[in-house]
Amino acid sequence: SLVSPTREGFIELESVKQVLRPDTLLVSLIAAHNETGAINDIESIGNYLAEQGILFHVDAVQALGKVEFRPGNLPIDFASFSAHKIGGPKGVGMLYMKASTHLAPLLIGGGQESGLRSGTQNVCGAAGFAAACRVCCDPDYLSTEGERLRALRDYMYEKLTAYSCVHATVPCVPGSKDYLPQIVNVCVEGAESETIILQCDLNGISVSGGSACSTHSLKASRSLLELGISPDLALGALRISMGPGTTAEDIESFLAVFDSIVSKLS
Amino acid sequence: SLVSPTREGFIELESVKQVLRPDTLLVSLIAAHNETGAINDIESIGNYLAEQGILFHVDAVQALGKVEFRPGNLPIDFASFSAHKIGGPKGVGMLYMKASTHLAPLLIGGGQESGLRSGTQNVCGAAGFAAACRVCCDPDYLSTEGERLRALRDYMYEKLTAYSCVHATVPCVPGSKDYLPQIVNVCVEGAESETIILQCDLNGISVSGGSACSTHSLKASRSLLELGISPDLALGALRISMGPGTTAEDIESFLAVFDSIVSKLS
Repeated sequence: SLVSPTREGFIELESVKQVLRPDTLLVSLIAAHNETGAINDIESIGNYLAEQGILFHVDAVQALGKVEFRPGNLPIDFASFSAHKIGGPKGVGMLYMKASTHLAPLLIGGGQESGLRSGTQNVCGAAGFAAACRVCCDPDYLSTEGERLRALRDYMYEKLTAYSCVHATVPCVPGSKDYLPQIVNVCVEGAESETIILQCDLNGISVSGGSACSTHSLKASRSLLELGISPDLALGALRISMGPGTTAEDIESFLAVFDSIVSKLS
Repeated sequence: SLVSPTREGFIELESVKQVLRPDTLLVSLIAAHNETGAINDIESIGNYLAEQGILFHVDAVQALGKVEFRPGNLPIDFASFSAHKIGGPKGVGMLYMKASTHLAPLLIGGGQESGLRSGTQNVCGAAGFAAACRVCCDPDYLSTEGERLRALRDYMYEKLTAYSCVHATVPCVPGSKDYLPQIVNVCVEGAESETIILQCDLNGISVSGGSACSTHSLKASRSLLELGISPDLALGALRISMGPGTTAEDIESFLAVFDSIVSKLS
């Protein structure tokens, strides 16, 4: 079963409860949504699932290094992470497993990585990921960098939604900690994501439409449709993601390019 | 079903025929054996399987960059390769698939790599592997380096088998192209692999016993037992693998260390 989000982009405990069945073994949930940035209340949901004896997997790829997320302090059984999302190398991920849980491997063979993933280990990848974690999961870094990105995010939402054709995908109010600090998501009425992305790219700016997993599809994002956004509007979705290297000047450059694109639309 | 090798370490067409059944869909065979270096006659076996309409997968991890192996010129459907075996980065492999074949993915999700392996691509790993292939699969390199390693291999077999307690695992005669140029495999009577490996390690020399996949097991190699070698003797198996960086001086250093180990045994 799939759980539906609220209009604001959150998966709530009540919605999870609605799809649970007596034979439900596992619930898998995203910690913070990759397109909208909506941060789910993993703690409440996890506590409820633990009471029910249901295993809980959390996809924390987008949350890692952006907001505080320590799987050992949360009522979860499994959490997955990806190195390249925090400046680590591409091609390496991490799975957190609570000590008392078990998992059947998908890849069998030499029994490497405690039998969970056979194959010669990606040593450099793992070392690079660990180095990235040391920098990006430091509480002081998270707090300082979070504040910095949140201010840029709020500024972008303010500037972008000043255009009558631009609609914020989620109601992320200034200073909000309910959404990730690094993601801005808007829908541009009467435009197609692909056109805006290409125009930005020609100006040296990389932005995206839906999720990276569906980059080559020109269909509206299923996640945005689930929020109740109309298919027409969802086709004009634009996601601007920031990182440690994103400066206030970068944002001004993007806004200038965006302005020239929007002025051609009308 | 498993196919048995000859005493010399080869998987022969006749042995493959014996285990085929009317419902056999796929045969998977190693191109060159990781422990003995025995090179199988992939062409004859592949031609027969193609006639029978049976898919053929070849594990060419040990053959790549050591002997000529071009999957496109061979009657095979799939071949697998590993980057770190030819000086490329750890953690990346390659699957060759004939254009007309199909495969159900083990990892599903974003549909990356033509849907065969979802997940963000290991770009640096793939680029590093490609660079290693450009060097190591060049015909001139293969020929020159093959000659060089073959001479070192033959020299080692000569020196090692001069000890009465040392037995060549396979009958690799000088100049033989039936065995990989870079692998020497012997069994030391009355010794345990682990002891020799540790002694070599203390002298800065890395050698191995069975296969890397079973490094932490102290059991005799299943492959050697399959050759008909006694369990006692197989426990003293020693594999010396060479690479582009291995010099004649390295071999002399190893032989000196080996001599001091063997003299302590008797």
